[in-house]
This record gives sequence, C-alpha cells and structure tokens, in this order.
Amino acid sequence: MSIKAIFEAHIFDLQNRICKGLEHADTQGQFVEDQWQRDGGGGGKTRILNNGKVIEKGGVNVSVVHGELPELFKEKFKVDEATFYACGLSLVIHPKSPKVPTVHANWRYFEMYDKTGNIKTAWFGGGTDLTPYYLDEEDAKHFHQVNKNVCDKHDTSYYPNFKKECDAYFYNSHRDECRGIGGIFFDYQRENDHKSMQEIMNFSIDSGNAFLEAYLPILEKHKNESYTPEEKVWQEIRRGRYVEFNLLHDRGTHFGIKTKGRTESILMSLPSTVRWEYNHKPKSGSAEEQLIEVLKNPVDWA
Amino acid sequence: MSIKAIFEAHIFDLQNRICKGLEHADTQGQFVEDQWQRDGGGGGKTRILNNGKVIEKGGVNVSVVHGELPELFKEKFKVDEATFYACGLSLVIHPKSPKVPTVHANWRYFEMYDKTGNIKTAWFGGGTDLTPYYLDEEDAKHFHQVNKNVCDKHDTSYYPNFKKECDAYFYNSHRDECRGIGGIFFDYQRENDHKSMQEIMNFSIDSGNAFLEAYLPILEKHKNESYTPEEKVWQEIRRGRYVEFNLLHDRGTHFGIKTKGRTESILMSLPSTVRWEYNHKPKSGSAEEQLIEVLKNPVDWA
Repeated sequence: MSIKAIFEAHIFDLQNRICKGLEHADTQGQFVEDQWQRDGGGGGKTRILNNGKVIEKGGVNVSVVHGELPELFKEKFKVDEATFYACGLSLVIHPKSPKVPTVHANWRYFEMYDKTGNIKTAWFGGGTDLTPYYLDEEDAKHFHQVNKNVCDKHDTSYYPNFKKECDAYFYNSHRDECRGIGGIFFDYQRENDHKSMQEIMNFSIDSGNAFLEAYLPILEKHKNESYTPEEKVWQEIRRGRYVEFNLLHDRGTHFGIKTKGRTESILMSLPSTVRWEYNHKPKSGSAEEQLIEVLKNPVDWA
Repeated sequence: MSIKAIFEAHIFDLQNRICKGLEHADTQGQFVEDQWQRDGGGGGKTRILNNGKVIEKGGVNVSVVHGELPELFKEKFKVDEATFYACGLSLVIHPKSPKVPTVHANWRYFEMYDKTGNIKTAWFGGGTDLTPYYLDEEDAKHFHQVNKNVCDKHDTSYYPNFKKECDAYFYNSHRDECRGIGGIFFDYQRENDHKSMQEIMNFSIDSGNAFLEAYLPILEKHKNESYTPEEKVWQEIRRGRYVEFNLLHDRGTHFGIKTKGRTESILMSLPSTVRWEYNHKPKSGSAEEQLIEVLKNPVDWA
C-alpha cells in the first residue's frame, strides 16, 4: 500500500477512535457528521459535538482533497502547473468549564505532482497544543511528556525542535504572548538522508494515536470541578485571544479561506461564546495573571 | 493654516461632538479616555464607552502619528526612504439591543514626504457603514440618504461610486455576504484636475459632521424596543461575522497589527459578547433570513 493510502486509512480510523473517546469522557454529547464535497476534487467528514456535558463545542474533521494546485500554492512553491493530494485530521475541543483546557491537534500529509503525474514532493505536518484558562503545572507536564515520549521513540531531536516550533507558531505577536502552553508542531517533514517517508509517517501515526492519552486525563481530572461566573468570563476573554490567533495569524485558516475551502469546517475552530473587554488586565497576584506570565515566557515542561 | 493642521483640529473637535451626542442619546454611559504615545512618533486619544444604557461597547478614537514610513508601506508604495504623517478618527458603536444597528465610521488624512521633507503624495480616505441585526428599510434609506446628500453637495459622482466601494470593501468573501447594509467608503482621494486638496478636505469634514444626523435618529427610534433572548443570540452570531471581517479582511486592522500599532485601540472595534454556532442557518421566512438576503444582494437605498 502507498503512503497516502495507509495514512488516509489511519486518519479515518483515528477520527472514529478520538470521537468515541471524547464522547465517552463527555458522557452525554454526541458527534454529528456532515459529509461535504469539494468543487475541485475530494471532500471531507466534519464531526461536531455541540453542547455536551463537558464539551461546549468540539470538531474532529477529516478532509481528503485533490486536484489542480490552488493559485496561492503555485505562487508559494513557484510552480506553473501542478496537481496535489492532501489529507488531514483537524480537531479543536472547547470545554464548557474554564477549568478544562482547550486542545487543538492536526495531522496532515501532502503530495504534489508534475504534469505527468509523478510525485515532485511530499511531506507530513502536524502537532497538538494545549490552551488552559488556569495553569495546572501537572497538566502541562503530562501533556508535554506524552508528546515527548512519542517524539523520543522516533528521534530525540524531534521534541526539542517541535516544542520550540510550537511556541513560535501559536504566538499572538500583537499581544506578545503565546496562545497556550504549547505542545509540538512540525511541518514540511520530507524524506531525507536520515529518514524514509515510511519512518516519518510512522511518527505522524504514533503522534495521532497518542492524542487521547495526552488529553483525556486532563479533561477527566478537571471536568467536575466547580467554577465561578467570573472564571467563566475570564475563559471567554481568553477565547477571544484564541479567535484572534486563528483569524489574524493561523496559516491553515488563511489557506482554507483563500482557497475557498468549506467555511463552516474551517471556522468550527472558533469557540461558542466569546468576549472582548477593552484593555482587560488580570488582578495582580491572581491565578489569571499567573497564566499570562507563562504565556509570555514559555516553560520547558518535559 | 495647512490642510493637515485644519483637518487635525477638525477630528479632535469632531471626536468631542460625537462623544457628547452619543452620551446624550445613551443617557447613562460615559466615554473614558486613554491617551497613548507611539514609539515612532505621535499618539492618540482612545475613548471607550462601556456598558451604557443603550451602547454596550463603543469606541471613538483619534490618532495622529508620524515618523519613518513603516516597512510595509514602503513596499506597498515602492519607496526606499520616506517619512509620513497620518491622522484619523475611527469609531465603532455596538449597541446592547439587537434592534439597534452597529455603526462604524472613519475619516483619515495621510501625507508622505521624501528625504528632503517635501510632500510626495497626500490623500483623504474614510466613510461610514451600518450593520443592522434586523432590517428596517426606513433606517437604511435614512442612513444612505444623509450620506448621499453630503456627497451630492460636493460631487454627484461621489455617492454612486462610494456606495459601490463600500459594498465591495465590507464584504465577507468567505460567507458570500456583505458585513452590513453599507454606506459610503472612499480612499486615496488625491488632488486632481477637478478637485483641489481643500475641496476634498471639505467633503471629508462635511462627511464627518453628518455622522450624528445619519446615526442618532436610528438609535433613538429603536433604543427602547423590547427584544427576546433569541434575538440577542442572533445579534451575537452576527457579531461573529463582524469579528471575522475585521480580523480576516480589514486592511486597516491588518495594517495596525503589522505595524505594531496599539492593539487595544485597534481591537476596540470588536463587540463585547460574541457567539459562533456551527452551520447556523436562520429559519425560512424569518426576519433573520430577510437580513441575510439583503446582505447577499446589496440594495440601492437612496
């Protein structure tokens, strides 16, 4: 089987497993699926869990698209004529409670072909990152350690590099702060002297398979904690920063919007209720301020 | 007095008059001022009205900035070395009630100088547009007519052109709909064979002076109307589209963010409470659907 056939089968299977794991942890909410077709070729399965017991809004989406390379990509890769294939799983989980962190993950594979249909280049990308509203150091260590373990199994240079790339990528430059407490982020992982495509794929598969182990214990630990209306307001203000990152800075969102992707599948990443307060600043010495401190100065958690 | 001295004095005076007019109509809320300095030169006065009786969140801001032309602008205007001066008034008013439309307006003047300090180019830009949550045709006609009257006094070609530019500019291409029901939008209004800089400035001044006449009767008409929780939810969903436009498409927001402007003054345009629901569609035949229809097919209101 080809790399793309194996990885495509993997992400559909992973979508099933992740949705089941999240539904089980939520105990009430259920994912509802929308299948969609892309005009230029391919389509996807968008799965949304709305208003569960723990999860306020979550999306776990698979897309498998192909066809002529969109103009934007042609300019970027300096090719005149090319076709492409891309598949990926993208997920964002926004819990109701400000005590449970938001999580995002994505694993994707891309192939580009010349006129005669030969592969010109191919790469894997992906990663996962955590966005808490209140910092729990144990959670941060757990999330990073699970991801470090997966990385170390494949290459001990992976975790330090991908951790750094994650902090650099999910960065709200206009706020001088990270979106969350990071995780791993990798892109353009091509076959090279040290790694075969098969080996890179195996890492991507293992990374996806570790998602529930990285996130569910954190969700379970906090899902029944009580919270105050003020803490909910703080969560909604922080969700505003999440929206700012996704709409102002995220390359994936911009690529999707500019290439006329399915808007509802792209913007499912946005939380349900969000709040902007002019010049909001947390109280000195508060838990809210403690979070900001860590977002401004990323920590080595693992 | 120079063009820039006259226009700068005008926008500070206009800021005072608009804030007073809005406070009077609100009956309770008061604008609070933050003065700020820009690292490269200049600064501004940001005035925010938060949680008034009618206005949930409103900002009426003046900025007067100067210094070395930011890199982005150098690239855009293909100059190596240049200094600039820019002043402007920007306002966004988000009312509490979904029955009262949101309004945005902006008037700005820009000068660019060569190495020796001579003006290389200068222009005016600006406009105002209305974003209702429920369509009231009388409001739409009134808002457009006031702006058309100002335009016609200066040039009968202005209104048809600036109305069309407004519909084209405030367009959420990823939703295939306009942000609101438009108004006027003009940019790069330079001295030319038919118009002196003085004449263009006079139009900009008259346009700003007409703001309260265009908006206040609409606010007054609806401010005491009752509304349901469902109508408030609809307003928050539509505010989400407002956020999408400002963060994904608005040139002014991107310019501000990329040139390290004051984030809180730029993003004061975002509403207080906002909501995203996956794949939300208004009921067939509803007032909500009627609004969408007009946003997809702009109407000639005047």
